[in-house]
Amino acid sequence: MIDYQSILNSIYNKVIQDKDKGQIATYIPELANVDKNSFGIHLQLISGETFSVGDSEKKFSIQSISKVLSLAFAMSKVGTDIWNRLDVEPSGNPFNHMSLLELEKGIPRNPFINSGAIVIADILVSLLDNPKEDFLTYVRDLTGDASIDYNYKVANSEKQTGFTNYAAANLLKSFDNLNNDVVDVLDFYFHQCSLEMSCEQLTKAFYVFANKGNCLFEKTRLTKSQAKRINAIMLTCGFYDEAGEFAFEVGLPGKSGVGGGIVALLPNKFIISVWSPGLNERGNSKLGMQALELFTTQTNQSIF
Amino acid sequence: MIDYQSILNSIYNKVIQDKDKGQIATYIPELANVDKNSFGIHLQLISGETFSVGDSEKKFSIQSISKVLSLAFAMSKVGTDIWNRLDVEPSGNPFNHMSLLELEKGIPRNPFINSGAIVIADILVSLLDNPKEDFLTYVRDLTGDASIDYNYKVANSEKQTGFTNYAAANLLKSFDNLNNDVVDVLDFYFHQCSLEMSCEQLTKAFYVFANKGNCLFEKTRLTKSQAKRINAIMLTCGFYDEAGEFAFEVGLPGKSGVGGGIVALLPNKFIISVWSPGLNERGNSKLGMQALELFTTQTNQSIF
Amino acid sequence: MIDYQSILNSIYNKVIQDKDKGQIATYIPELANVDKNSFGIHLQLISGETFSVGDSEKKFSIQSISKVLSLAFAMSKVGTDIWNRLDVEPSGNPFNHMSLLELEKGIPRNPFINSGAIVIADILVSLLDNPKEDFLTYVRDLTGDASIDYNYKVANSEKQTGFTNYAAANLLKSFDNLNNDVVDVLDFYFHQCSLEMSCEQLTKAFYVFANKGNCLFEKTRLTKSQAKRINAIMLTCGFYDEAGEFAFEVGLPGKSGVGGGIVALLPNKFIISVWSPGLNERGNSKLGMQALELFTTQTNQSIF
Amino acid sequence: MIDYQSILNSIYNKVIQDKDKGQIATYIPELANVDKNSFGIHLQLISGETFSVGDSEKKFSIQSISKVLSLAFAMSKVGTDIWNRLDVEPSGNPFNHMSLLELEKGIPRNPFINSGAIVIADILVSLLDNPKEDFLTYVRDLTGDASIDYNYKVANSEKQTGFTNYAAANLLKSFDNLNNDVVDVLDFYFHQCSLEMSCEQLTKAFYVFANKGNCLFEKTRLTKSQAKRINAIMLTCGFYDEAGEFAFEVGLPGKSGVGGGIVALLPNKFIISVWSPGLNERGNSKLGMQALELFTTQTNQSIF
Repeated sequence: MIDYQSILNSIYNKVIQDKDKGQIATYIPELANVDKNSFGIHLQLISGETFSVGDSEKKFSIQSISKVLSLAFAMSKVGTDIWNRLDVEPSGNPFNHMSLLELEKGIPRNPFINSGAIVIADILVSLLDNPKEDFLTYVRDLTGDASIDYNYKVANSEKQTGFTNYAAANLLKSFDNLNNDVVDVLDFYFHQCSLEMSCEQLTKAFYVFANKGNCLFEKTRLTKSQAKRINAIMLTCGFYDEAGEFAFEVGLPGKSGVGGGIVALLPNKFIISVWSPGLNERGNSKLGMQALELFTTQTNQSIF
Repeated sequence: MIDYQSILNSIYNKVIQDKDKGQIATYIPELANVDKNSFGIHLQLISGETFSVGDSEKKFSIQSISKVLSLAFAMSKVGTDIWNRLDVEPSGNPFNHMSLLELEKGIPRNPFINSGAIVIADILVSLLDNPKEDFLTYVRDLTGDASIDYNYKVANSEKQTGFTNYAAANLLKSFDNLNNDVVDVLDFYFHQCSLEMSCEQLTKAFYVFANKGNCLFEKTRLTKSQAKRINAIMLTCGFYDEAGEFAFEVGLPGKSGVGGGIVALLPNKFIISVWSPGLNERGNSKLGMQALELFTTQTNQSIF
Repeated sequence: MIDYQSILNSIYNKVIQDKDKGQIATYIPELANVDKNSFGIHLQLISGETFSVGDSEKKFSIQSISKVLSLAFAMSKVGTDIWNRLDVEPSGNPFNHMSLLELEKGIPRNPFINSGAIVIADILVSLLDNPKEDFLTYVRDLTGDASIDYNYKVANSEKQTGFTNYAAANLLKSFDNLNNDVVDVLDFYFHQCSLEMSCEQLTKAFYVFANKGNCLFEKTRLTKSQAKRINAIMLTCGFYDEAGEFAFEVGLPGKSGVGGGIVALLPNKFIISVWSPGLNERGNSKLGMQALELFTTQTNQSIF
Repeated sequence: MIDYQSILNSIYNKVIQDKDKGQIATYIPELANVDKNSFGIHLQLISGETFSVGDSEKKFSIQSISKVLSLAFAMSKVGTDIWNRLDVEPSGNPFNHMSLLELEKGIPRNPFINSGAIVIADILVSLLDNPKEDFLTYVRDLTGDASIDYNYKVANSEKQTGFTNYAAANLLKSFDNLNNDVVDVLDFYFHQCSLEMSCEQLTKAFYVFANKGNCLFEKTRLTKSQAKRINAIMLTCGFYDEAGEFAFEVGLPGKSGVGGGIVALLPNKFIISVWSPGLNERGNSKLGMQALELFTTQTNQSIF
């Protein structure tokens, strides 16, 4: 029997001593104001038990982690037609994301690079009566927590300065792979990314992927096959240009965000969320990556 | 003594017999409505004489040819500081213009690719009190013709559908190489490109480059060095991905536009404009290219 | 209790009816001569049982599948130093593998793209007294089968026509990431790729990766961590530009070769090999991919 | 009447005072041994007069300048068929020459990038009975100087370490755009590049391009059209990634080499060669570029 609480405690004690905590994302003022020493872990076993350490109940900006939730929402509504508009291959190349989109004629490589998530946002904007409200309800229902909300300041900052995303959305539109107005799609997208959740809430939200599509608080939300496929995409594409490294070092499907959060999971076993706002040079939480590597090494659990 | 009129006549008679007149640009309705059989040439010698044939006085959308005029206007106002924000190298690669901009961190390769012309537009928007009015006055002054005007329908069509340009402008802005709002810069840019001029008017406007910076109707507009340098950029970058081919086959500095116009010149000798709206696969006037090749071959005149 | 034999039989009966069996690789004569109707599956459970159907004992050219075996051999000898010379990220881009190598200054993206496997070959050529003999012994030991051998005709054909590999090896050398002579390294590499094995033999060889580093016939060959990491690389990089698709559709670590073979495995559960020589447009066995997708769907087993 | 000797003298006196003389190419030992303070200019007017200053009679490795001579030789023998195998467009992108070749399926962008010059070398190896001897004879005849010779040490050094060229040649071969063996073609190519000539000799050799195809010492060597076209390629492609800059600053067709030589010419007027072995960051002679810019500014002569 694994003593998870001791393991979390020892990871916490080890990792927070690292003097180099990485760099906090500063491209919008709201992200820059976070305390760099924040650190939390929350672990939920499928069997029901939960464990936590540090700032596990403090909310932070989940940013790109939201892409998994919007993909799940879109897949549950559209089914496989979604894959006519984007691919599921790792993007590989950190140098020229815009060019990849150009070379591949407006078909994003996968739903977790920005252009792919923007296509998912476009799909949701077309489908939903009140996109922002409906998506928020979806996340609250998944998590069983009505207190979850957007950070409107963060969303507005991105609306005013997210020029790369405007570039990507316009390029998608030039290839006829965006049905709604750029401004409307990005308004939804920036709100989606501004969601604030704690490690504990994220763990609950991702329960559905570890539990064959059945979420923690309600009836089935995804088919078993959809949950499996989202896990596959998390593993191959969940960490920007460090996806291979994460699979190699940690060995779990997962997703990171520039707010410093990471969620990872072992299907049928557990979901774990870590938060530490300092990022490594590839844009993933520096201490978060270390903590997850220690966790899978010490518990000897991974998909491989 | 060369009999220019006979040469123009023989070129006209030969070229208009070509059954494959290329493809008219159709990405905005206003361009698609042009008569494919239109064809005109106007030749102006520095010594004063002029010669013409066909539809040489019919106006058409000069589109990218306007980039030479906006560059000249910006250079005359800013001087060499302009080259901190863009380069003068041929772009070479037809596959991934957006990526080139990414790889080179927002510094456009030259002022005649769209991203470069957008930077020039940004410079003019910053400098001018009434950018659209002032630029129009500049072109009218250069040409000595107050009838020249924008086509507002064309400009508005581009404003609504020019997504690739919005993508490029936003990418420039993400690299801090655009000082004004994307919408303001592109409003100016789309108007600039919508200018309508005839072969005769274009020839007059480009007189300044062939005549060491002294324009046809007024006092000096450019220094000798500026005129020379603009000619150099026209030669190396004036024909999209066909610049090398044009230098190789024709051997003159020049500039083409998707409206089917081409202007070329031999410094201190002549300026020649051709218009035929059908484009070859590289986006340059198909018959226009042929006509200019015949002209330099038959008159045995080129810079090389 | 799953009736594996019935499942293999039903997959076999379904898949061989597909009229479009893909295209056999023809770039060397020896590969082109294979019977397109060949089809075999072999399944080995970690618990000991084996199941098979069709041409499961017929040998074929394993080609790129050998890259997993050479990587394992190198890792068992060198340890983590190997990762100074190559990365573990998916390559993503099908258009310009050579350029990726250029952009990343001679550090191959992962050990399963050709340039990466050539670096592994270089490491083995440096380490081994008799590279070709020693590697053959390693594979025979892993498989417990001394009948396994190179196909010298195939190796020689590649030596004479494998110009892309010569280009990659020379480019690596220009970046100082190849210590031995190009010709020596590629001689080893082409032999390695020419190995001929049956589905049954491949399954035995890959037992070590599914069984925590302990191979079928001998004492430990890899540490548990090494086996886990090789599985991670197979999952993220094992199928050229279809790695994401394979993870998405099949959900197992695996490796394919242009000879039409595929091996895949579920750690601690099973190893499965399929062979059908016709390839899909991305270079993986067309029917093999279908068979594995059916297998994981019908047995409801995958890492996700 | 321009006093050319005074101008050359004043340029010489000004330029040699520059303390930053650039970096000598050191990738082969033979190039690294040159005296960094060497500096020479030779000017030949079409009217017959010659002027010189400094080390104008000292021989150096002409390297890439030889590509103009091999192109001229091939064009004089093959005619326009040569352009089925390569293009005449500027290459533009310094980052990924190998990838450009990949993207464009083995058709080099122009005859002055290495892959293009290797195709020209292949053409000559196919055509000539004794390629190295015949090409040497051609250059000697053009120059009227039988003392010109290869530097066999330089050629041999390149044969042993020119891995990027082996990579390019193999990539060409993988695209069926190399008819002879890689080793044979590169043996010729490396000898061609190892030619040693002085500024004076280079000026004589390039007389043919400035004089409508008629060389200095013999009967016609090129048609007028061929000379004109080679000049066009020099202007658009003669200075690696600095072609646009050279056209912009100097305004003459020309060609540089990593040995520190540059030749440039004004058709029907003059040919000028400069040599200073230190290179700027783009691989062109640092002081040589400055000297030529001063020359065209002070004499007020350029093609534009």
